[in-house]
Amino acid sequence: MPTETEMKAAVQAYVDGFNNADADAIMALFAANAVIEDPVGSPLKSRAQFEQFIRQGVRFGARLALAAPIRGSHGNAAAMAFTVTFEDGVRRITTNSLDVMTFDDEGKIVFMQGFWGPGDASVLSGR
Amino acid sequence: MPTETEMKAAVQAYVDGFNNADADAIMALFAANAVIEDPVGSPLKSRAQFEQFIRQGVRFGARLALAAPIRGSHGNAAAMAFTVTFEDGVRRITTNSLDVMTFDDEGKIVFMQGFWGPGDASVLSGR
Repeated sequence: MPTETEMKAAVQAYVDGFNNADADAIMALFAANAVIEDPVGSPLKSRAQFEQFIRQGVRFGARLALAAPIRGSHGNAAAMAFTVTFEDGVRRITTNSLDVMTFDDEGKIVFMQGFWGPGDASVLSGR
Repeated sequence: MPTETEMKAAVQAYVDGFNNADADAIMALFAANAVIEDPVGSPLKSRAQFEQFIRQGVRFGARLALAAPIRGSHGNAAAMAFTVTFEDGVRRITTNSLDVMTFDDEGKIVFMQGFWGPGDASVLSGR
């Protein structure tokens, strides 16, 4: 199992990957068999499906900001509360979000859940 | 399924329950068959086991402070990042924590996971 420090570093690298517009760096954090539920309550995504979502986010200029320090656990998981802000070409939107990441023995993310609801998204500007 | 607003209100009531030192109000949020993993990576607790943990927390004067607005989801879950501060009689400790709560159709918590690791706890004062 990766250490708490290693898992928190991977979560920070996910944040940094968006802020550096580096989709390859983001995807390198995920295991080949990773499953993603983002938002929680939507259909599960495979790694390949999630990669499209990530690359679109990077194209939309998504920027992540931690809302509080990354949390660890006593197991193989870490979590963070953050905001994500992006422009879809029409509107600038910010969403209060919270991700839980579960890791495999190699320290790769095997399961990620993104907690945000319709009430957590705000339109900052646009039509 | 409870609404996003109802689930967020239940999470807020959990915070308020501690801050009002009202263990009964906290426990009223949980379903009879609730399962609690707090911290994540520790053995699962039944509702009865968790109640002892909650009552001890209230005795230790645990106070919760949201670190960011409560997050919803597109399903039956909500989540929050917070700090919890308490005194165990010897030391004053604060922990960066993050809870994910899953709800049943009656709006009661059926599963709660608390994300905090050894590195998330700080001794504020004491021997």
